Amino acid sequence: MEDNIKFDEKGLVPAIVQDADSGEVLMMAYMNKEALQRTLAGGDVWFYSRSRKELWHKGETSGNYIKVCEVWQDCDGDTILVKAHPTGPVCHTGNKTCFFEKLTKQDI
Amino acid sequence: MEDNIKFDEKGLVPAIVQDADSGEVLMMAYMNKEALQRTLAGGDVWFYSRSRKELWHKGETSGNYIKVCEVWQDCDGDTILVKAHPTGPVCHTGNKTCFFEKLTKQDI
Repeated sequence: MEDNIKFDEKGLVPAIVQDADSGEVLMMAYMNKEALQRTLAGGDVWFYSRSRKELWHKGETSGNYIKVCEVWQDCDGDTILVKAHPTGPVCHTGNKTCFFEKLTKQDI
Repeated sequence: MEDNIKFDEKGLVPAIVQDADSGEVLMMAYMNKEALQRTLAGGDVWFYSRSRKELWHKGETSGNYIKVCEVWQDCDGDTILVKAHPTGPVCHTGNKTCFFEKLTKQDI
């Protein structure tokens, strides 16, 4: 298959991480080509940190690495879905998932 | 709760849609403030189409609307997760999900 991932004007593509067992959506962050290559190599999930402007080996600080199971692209190649096994809480707050705040129509 | 969604420099925030029953990740698209407000009002999922540059009532062309169950934000307010019930295939290809192409390390 040809390389048909559409990186944006900053060379990034959004990547959703989902727990391969529970199906829970854990986080979303951005990958550049090298982060995607490293993620596809198997082992851990890698991102590109937009704030630090560098490759980000998720878990390198917290110890909570995310182990890759499968990597999918969407129909137009501009979003990645990683099915994975987290080795600990994914969120920097200590929550299992970054999506722990529910919105209501009063919020926006 | 204060309005703490971080819309990007184009006024958009990425929104993941997940099947509320199966947990399957169905698609990702972008919402502006009005699309998020309409989605939070209950009923159908709305996006902002970056290509057409207009509000996008998902399903208005195909008839395959997506019914909102819950809306979540992530820890830093820059990604939305919508748990929902699709009324038909979500993808324009006719697939149930937009994530139907698996990547391997040969792909990138």
